[in-house]
Amino acid sequence: MTDTKKAKGVEAAAKQEFLKVFEKLRDEIIYDKCLGDQPQLAIDYAKKMMDYNTPHGKLNRGMAVLDVVKAIQEDASDELVFKANVLGWCIEFLQAYFLVADDIMDGSITRRGQPCWYKLPEIGMNAVNDGIYLENAIYLTLRNHFRSEPYYARLMELFHEVTFQTVHGQMLDLITAPIGTVDLSRYTIDTYMRIVTYKTAFYSFYLPVACGMVVTGVEDDAALSTAREILLEMGQYFQIQDDYLDAFGDPEFIGKVGTDIEDNKCSWLVVKALSKATAEHRKLLEEHYGKPEPEGVAKVKQIYRELGLEKDFQDYEAESYKKLCAKIEQQTVLPKSVFTSLLNKIYKRTK
Amino acid sequence: MTDTKKAKGVEAAAKQEFLKVFEKLRDEIIYDKCLGDQPQLAIDYAKKMMDYNTPHGKLNRGMAVLDVVKAIQEDASDELVFKANVLGWCIEFLQAYFLVADDIMDGSITRRGQPCWYKLPEIGMNAVNDGIYLENAIYLTLRNHFRSEPYYARLMELFHEVTFQTVHGQMLDLITAPIGTVDLSRYTIDTYMRIVTYKTAFYSFYLPVACGMVVTGVEDDAALSTAREILLEMGQYFQIQDDYLDAFGDPEFIGKVGTDIEDNKCSWLVVKALSKATAEHRKLLEEHYGKPEPEGVAKVKQIYRELGLEKDFQDYEAESYKKLCAKIEQQTVLPKSVFTSLLNKIYKRTK
Repeated sequence: MTDTKKAKGVEAAAKQEFLKVFEKLRDEIIYDKCLGDQPQLAIDYAKKMMDYNTPHGKLNRGMAVLDVVKAIQEDASDELVFKANVLGWCIEFLQAYFLVADDIMDGSITRRGQPCWYKLPEIGMNAVNDGIYLENAIYLTLRNHFRSEPYYARLMELFHEVTFQTVHGQMLDLITAPIGTVDLSRYTIDTYMRIVTYKTAFYSFYLPVACGMVVTGVEDDAALSTAREILLEMGQYFQIQDDYLDAFGDPEFIGKVGTDIEDNKCSWLVVKALSKATAEHRKLLEEHYGKPEPEGVAKVKQIYRELGLEKDFQDYEAESYKKLCAKIEQQTVLPKSVFTSLLNKIYKRTK
Repeated sequence: MTDTKKAKGVEAAAKQEFLKVFEKLRDEIIYDKCLGDQPQLAIDYAKKMMDYNTPHGKLNRGMAVLDVVKAIQEDASDELVFKANVLGWCIEFLQAYFLVADDIMDGSITRRGQPCWYKLPEIGMNAVNDGIYLENAIYLTLRNHFRSEPYYARLMELFHEVTFQTVHGQMLDLITAPIGTVDLSRYTIDTYMRIVTYKTAFYSFYLPVACGMVVTGVEDDAALSTAREILLEMGQYFQIQDDYLDAFGDPEFIGKVGTDIEDNKCSWLVVKALSKATAEHRKLLEEHYGKPEPEGVAKVKQIYRELGLEKDFQDYEAESYKKLCAKIEQQTVLPKSVFTSLLNKIYKRTK
């Protein structure tokens, strides 16, 4: 067996183990005693809803907790491995909650290769309540598995804080590009960086590492704040990749067709384009950005190409990687692999 | 000054004091340090959103916490009074969250005498995220004001548990009357009681009292469970009144036009009607229930009248009041006025 094959086997086994934990947690939730003796109808619905919305993603965020724990404690006990995976699912519940809500807000059609939950004819706007149910799954799970730990309140606070930060980022994103108006002057790099930091980086990068730190007892404020600085930067890099792939990635490979241009999104590409655009480019962008016509979208992409944004992205990627590696090298609060395991998963990704 | 006038003055003063606390808490949230140095745009939006959705209701749930605290500790200190009101606002944040979400799910037009938040053209489905923001206000507030209390984790758990119970009730309500189908055989009294208990009674009646108990240190399990039993029954009575007023109350006085019949709601009236209906009545109900035509709605109300449901409601109300008073008399875990102050606010209410 080659090393790559072996690594893939280990990864697949870890995923299997992670998925098994999901079924246990889901059942704990849908049969929770605070609901008393509920009708089968409700149990069936909740099970279907959780199965549909939770375990079909890449699961990178959730599985990262165990990677972090193992980087900190090589000889992690079975109990610690299990606890790491439980926290991983709490992050996936949070992610599922955000996605169900985001799809409604964006009017999206598909998600993870299936229709968005709210798009199912028998669901519709009930999805709003189902999102809340998914969020509740976090706190029921923390209660079921961490209630007797000294860091129980700390964990609840961590999830609350990160949820609030994400909601703030989402709010800023929505009010920067309000419905029915295109005002490109709002799309500055400062606004952009703030949106992606709050909307994505906190919950996708900081949260898994913070969970891993709390559960292994490494959680002094200095360590958390050093980790946060690196992880937020990694999250920014991840989102900039996402924006790049939305326009220039292969839809077949990514699993979705990008619609940032049509959706009037404050994307890294449009921010970068505006900073380099001639008056003529700017006029064309103002004319076609945030509109559904395919010809307009094609024109915007043409401008991106003319302005050399593909090269700009590659330069940004190389420089960002270098900077992150240097910061990881410099810090002394955590084993380097806590960060490199995450970074190597996303560096030069194509989906 | 008459006693009634005096009581009204005291009530108005309490409301003023309660509203002052809101402004403080709102500002703590919109300027929370975990958001760093945010743009004015976001602060303005969050302030407007919280002001629009939080303080315009009757505030009965929120103000009940202080009533409970004063019933338990007549000489409550200023600090305790403040803490009670802070918890009261946490309940109002939860209520605001549910209402913003419910209005989207029900397609409602107005709420508390103004357009529903999601109906404002500049808001739309962004309201989903705003609802989540309002929920986050609960946990930021608990952190800001109760972090050093020994019962801090207990409070977080209480709000999580009650949120989950409410979401469960809402889920059951939605799946009992799925979009586009009218199946009156699902409308049994058992299902009805379960829906109202979980959807309304836990957060509207149990939660304010539980908060008052926790903050005054009266919170052994036996006391909580006795209180819960009485308060859930009170919540059921409250919701049955609500259903009655929806069809037979004065819209001018209630502040909204009832639409339970059009909306295919599992209302106490339709459950009661089905239990007494002749074959002919049942056929008419099946034909007209859950449909928007005003003639059909009028026919359903006519059947309610023919079946004597107004009298049935009055009998139910009298009997329920008697039973509740007896239970309150019997229990010894809490001062009677904890319960009677709540009960007297809702007994024979007309709005």
